[in-house]
Amino acid sequence: MRNILLKLCFNGTKYCGWQIQKNGTSVQGVLKETIFKITAEQANIIGCGRTDAGVSAKEYFCNFIIENEIECAKLLKALNALLPKDIAVLECSEVDLSFHARYNVKKKEYIYQIYNSDIRNPFYEELYLYYPFHLDEKLLNEAARCFKGTKDFKGFMSSGSAIKDTVRTVFEASVERDEKVITFTVSADGFLYNMVRIFVGTLLFIAQGKIKAENLNELIEKKERKCLGATAPPNGLLLNRVEY
Amino acid sequence: MRNILLKLCFNGTKYCGWQIQKNGTSVQGVLKETIFKITAEQANIIGCGRTDAGVSAKEYFCNFIIENEIECAKLLKALNALLPKDIAVLECSEVDLSFHARYNVKKKEYIYQIYNSDIRNPFYEELYLYYPFHLDEKLLNEAARCFKGTKDFKGFMSSGSAIKDTVRTVFEASVERDEKVITFTVSADGFLYNMVRIFVGTLLFIAQGKIKAENLNELIEKKERKCLGATAPPNGLLLNRVEY
Repeated sequence: MRNILLKLCFNGTKYCGWQIQKNGTSVQGVLKETIFKITAEQANIIGCGRTDAGVSAKEYFCNFIIENEIECAKLLKALNALLPKDIAVLECSEVDLSFHARYNVKKKEYIYQIYNSDIRNPFYEELYLYYPFHLDEKLLNEAARCFKGTKDFKGFMSSGSAIKDTVRTVFEASVERDEKVITFTVSADGFLYNMVRIFVGTLLFIAQGKIKAENLNELIEKKERKCLGATAPPNGLLLNRVEY
Repeated sequence: MRNILLKLCFNGTKYCGWQIQKNGTSVQGVLKETIFKITAEQANIIGCGRTDAGVSAKEYFCNFIIENEIECAKLLKALNALLPKDIAVLECSEVDLSFHARYNVKKKEYIYQIYNSDIRNPFYEELYLYYPFHLDEKLLNEAARCFKGTKDFKGFMSSGSAIKDTVRTVFEASVERDEKVITFTVSADGFLYNMVRIFVGTLLFIAQGKIKAENLNELIEKKERKCLGATAPPNGLLLNRVEY
């Protein structure tokens, strides 16, 4: 028995998310089929977390147990030769049998990219939210500071999640502008269902004057989904880094 | 009568090229329909040149005559509101009736981008050629110098073109590397059918040892298509700048 750890990178635009689902093509499903083609084993792949439909990952880790004795370097090449162009395996290694790609995560960092200009950019459609009205990155960066710390983020969880413990520690939350691109960066020990997208939607509500920045801490403490912003679209979201 | 000049930007991935064709959706066709929706006029749109299927433009100019008196600022907004997401109008102005977007071009610059790494990048699929074997950018840059000057580029023209005068002046031709991205930049007073893609294909033949760099000048002088490299795929090609 060998525990194989993969570091992936995927453009999630055409997938229903990481997790295998009945309807739609998932990254996990495509990977499972590809591993089967190489090893003839039905691997149970453990991902570092779920990702929503349309969300991409610059860095995503998963592990699975196989019996096959294929060398890691060969497995890496075989996977990259057979996987579709929007999924790449960056690294492949054998790890201790106790390693678990989800339980062992210490920190995950997401970024959310917004193309902020009065005219669309045809080259920035896929991985950016287009937002035509001027965003004040200083105001949003100031507001994003309210997301930091160990808090009950229940209000930032979409319905449909069975999770009970909604306390998470957000290490970093900031907003930066690089010309017409606004980037929201957030890292935490874990995220609730749609949490980053609701963070972004809440920042957009602040930009639109629907929520006052000075009331944000109070609204977080209400722990009610309806007090916060809309869930921002998935395409601007990117899992940027995972630490173990 | 007003002569309207548009500066466009388009992601050409899903189009059969600039020019209206019987089969397939063209940028010119989509623009013509959109202008009709706004002005109820069937404009004869003159582009700064043809682009192949799948080729994009960071900057593309076209002009057309209309009777409609809509202000340029309003026309710009209306076009951007109605055009698909992969075509944007960056500027709209009224120019002298004598201005012709094709005849008045002084210089066009194309870039061709290659993602050069043993592992694909899922985020660089659309606008880059993926090339897995190491490319020596210094060798290619040296070879690209042979493309410079006023020459008969007949060998760099795909069959199917009715053009007789195949002499063009290439002002710049260079190859640079930025980490895993190789960029070929070429500017000229005009380009023959598939000329840039055959330049790139020839550079790749040199990288593969199918053509010797020291023979390139001689091969160009033969003016025969078969003596040069294959036509590189369209997706790496981008019209980068047009000067009048």
